[in-house]
Amino acid sequence: MTKPLRLGIAGLGTVGVGVVQILRKQAALLEARTGRAVVISAVSARSKTKDRGVNLSSYAWEDDPVDLAKRDDVDVFVELIGGDEGPAKDATEAALALGKDVVTANKAMLAMHGQALALAAEEKGCVIKYEAAVAGGIPVIKALGEGLAGNEITRVMGVMNGSCNYILTRMEDSGLPYADIFAEADGLGYLEADPQLDVGGIDAAHKLAILSSLAFGTQVNFAGIELEGIGRVSIEDIHAAADMGYKIKLLGVAQMTGRGLEQRMQPCLVPDTSPLGQLQGGTNMLVLEGDAVGQIVLRGAGAGAGPTASAVLSDICDIARGHRGAVFGQPAKTLTAATPALSQRPAPYYIRMAITDKPGALAKVAAVLGEAGVSIDRMRQYGHVNDSAPVLIVTHKTTRADIDHALAAFGATSVVAGEPVALRIEEV
Amino acid sequence: MTKPLRLGIAGLGTVGVGVVQILRKQAALLEARTGRAVVISAVSARSKTKDRGVNLSSYAWEDDPVDLAKRDDVDVFVELIGGDEGPAKDATEAALALGKDVVTANKAMLAMHGQALALAAEEKGCVIKYEAAVAGGIPVIKALGEGLAGNEITRVMGVMNGSCNYILTRMEDSGLPYADIFAEADGLGYLEADPQLDVGGIDAAHKLAILSSLAFGTQVNFAGIELEGIGRVSIEDIHAAADMGYKIKLLGVAQMTGRGLEQRMQPCLVPDTSPLGQLQGGTNMLVLEGDAVGQIVLRGAGAGAGPTASAVLSDICDIARGHRGAVFGQPAKTLTAATPALSQRPAPYYIRMAITDKPGALAKVAAVLGEAGVSIDRMRQYGHVNDSAPVLIVTHKTTRADIDHALAAFGATSVVAGEPVALRIEEV
Repeated sequence: MTKPLRLGIAGLGTVGVGVVQILRKQAALLEARTGRAVVISAVSARSKTKDRGVNLSSYAWEDDPVDLAKRDDVDVFVELIGGDEGPAKDATEAALALGKDVVTANKAMLAMHGQALALAAEEKGCVIKYEAAVAGGIPVIKALGEGLAGNEITRVMGVMNGSCNYILTRMEDSGLPYADIFAEADGLGYLEADPQLDVGGIDAAHKLAILSSLAFGTQVNFAGIELEGIGRVSIEDIHAAADMGYKIKLLGVAQMTGRGLEQRMQPCLVPDTSPLGQLQGGTNMLVLEGDAVGQIVLRGAGAGAGPTASAVLSDICDIARGHRGAVFGQPAKTLTAATPALSQRPAPYYIRMAITDKPGALAKVAAVLGEAGVSIDRMRQYGHVNDSAPVLIVTHKTTRADIDHALAAFGATSVVAGEPVALRIEEV
Repeated sequence: MTKPLRLGIAGLGTVGVGVVQILRKQAALLEARTGRAVVISAVSARSKTKDRGVNLSSYAWEDDPVDLAKRDDVDVFVELIGGDEGPAKDATEAALALGKDVVTANKAMLAMHGQALALAAEEKGCVIKYEAAVAGGIPVIKALGEGLAGNEITRVMGVMNGSCNYILTRMEDSGLPYADIFAEADGLGYLEADPQLDVGGIDAAHKLAILSSLAFGTQVNFAGIELEGIGRVSIEDIHAAADMGYKIKLLGVAQMTGRGLEQRMQPCLVPDTSPLGQLQGGTNMLVLEGDAVGQIVLRGAGAGAGPTASAVLSDICDIARGHRGAVFGQPAKTLTAATPALSQRPAPYYIRMAITDKPGALAKVAAVLGEAGVSIDRMRQYGHVNDSAPVLIVTHKTTRADIDHALAAFGATSVVAGEPVALRIEEV
């Protein structure tokens, strides 16, 4: 009989409690599936007395997660505290130093310190598993790192923050501006304590940095991500994009190019008939592309106690079954430090602007685009309201540099009112 | 340095050649990812002299796959021959008897002999891995067996035969009847040599039987599947379903019920706005539902050399990494022999019939339904053409038994022309 796998669980928020509940409810199933009992030795959280709706009395208690990680009766340290520094990292490092495996849902910690932690783990022959860190219950880490292991990955992209997708789809459904829906989402408790983590794209960018490393054999490089949140997406752009057959999504894209690793997390347009375009509400979607497999799409709940706990359990079962392996798909010391490449890959762009009611205004706009080398695919001018008229342009493939050149030149024409908006159209 | 993992590949059709090509092209990547070299020792196929566009001269050749499986320089037997009996099974059994791991894409063999092969493998401490047997490149075996290992699976469903989905979506797009599109698909080489494997739903049912076992801890039971192909789906039903907001799909559904294991592979209606409803052409889609994770949707190419080879490589990499485990998620000797349960679960149904041009005809139809305990949710009658008028009915949830009772009773009314059609509407 194989010995039980003994867990120490640090962090008893909704996910931690969800993990405890599954381990209790499904003990027999988990033992049948993994071939050994999976038990909780000890737990740790900030408040020992808080009622969490689950009976913790049979587990030892530690006030300090570092002490939990060091316990002799803990084989696997399950880190569900969160935060890229502080107790989560201290306790993870303590566990690894003692040769213990770690399961974590902590995307921030891995995005900022993934390389150092992976080196520390692999030096001791430990694993760090983190299915729950990206896209909640969707088994994307496993799909990318194992399911597509025979592929050279060509592109990874997706909608990785449910709160942002909720806001964008609610704006479209309600016709209300960003500020109103932001307030609604905040009131419903859909946003992090620091909402910038969500709407600023930071949380989603943490996830993208992790996926990039696994996909391309590169060291996690959060700083190399071109990052823009959804705060500047207007209801006018959502409506105008819909008119042209697109949806606006906070889209993460990672791609290896001749100049280095391109990583972007920014509002983009995608065709409204594509799987990404049809994604409503708080759901997440990942699109994985490999040279052999073509395109694989994964869709599911990106957050919530059940889905996230499901992912944590997947990692625990892997360890119980003896499925080990390099943290980021190949040994950390072989991961390359990829040069961040700004997205100079040509793409179609969406441009929205208002032109003044003067003869030849549209001709001047078209001339500026032509001089910048930007070719127009489709254009619509709407009727004048007060002294200006909205103009929507979908360009042929062009570079961001040429688009920026055109945007800068619009000022000199004196026919463009206000600030034009330009968003990339991602080919999906 | 870990020793190389040595493969014997039996079957050099498009998938086998695809596997050889990836192993050659990505040798360095595979070694980085798995920590050991993955090499081909020997191959086997029917014709040694056929030009397959790949240089096989550096591998030993065996005419008989059983001899290949027995070679001392083969650690893993890769079975890409196909067929539930004959050389594929003989060679697989020979490999297992000698304690060798097996990777196979053979859904028919696993659906018919999965339990016996799993017992044979596990007695010797071997693994049989079969990611390529279900839904080509989509890593659904890994997602279900490992990614959702912490879940009690509540339902598995999906579109698992790309050729059938191609035919059904082409019928809708072209407006042409089944026979025409069947001939077109056959001409394009989209169908198996025995097309009944595709359009009869047998191939898809093989896949469903495998997924059921993994999902519910039951012995593979192909014979327990309620099976109907797409041969009776008419262009009239496709149009009528579209009118009511549905698409017709050859849908596999497996679900554990109080009465036993329900497994169905049959044409069903799904909402046209659902991910399954939006699935076009030859793509596959799997929907996995678990008590913790909720619903996960996976989408990708279900066939073709690249995607299928990608799945084979995933299994090979797992073995190279030392990821082992029970064939069907838990030891074969612990799998239960589930009682097949016919689908008595209530569901809404779609009924299409033609009624004759007589006063009170519709009232008689409605009365029959009422007497059978079938409640109408929506009904449409169209104008009369020659002496009859098409009637479409969507019922509230009811059992198949009540529907069959009503269908039988329509005959006695003398107002129903021809044979009414009734199809289940699956809630997705």
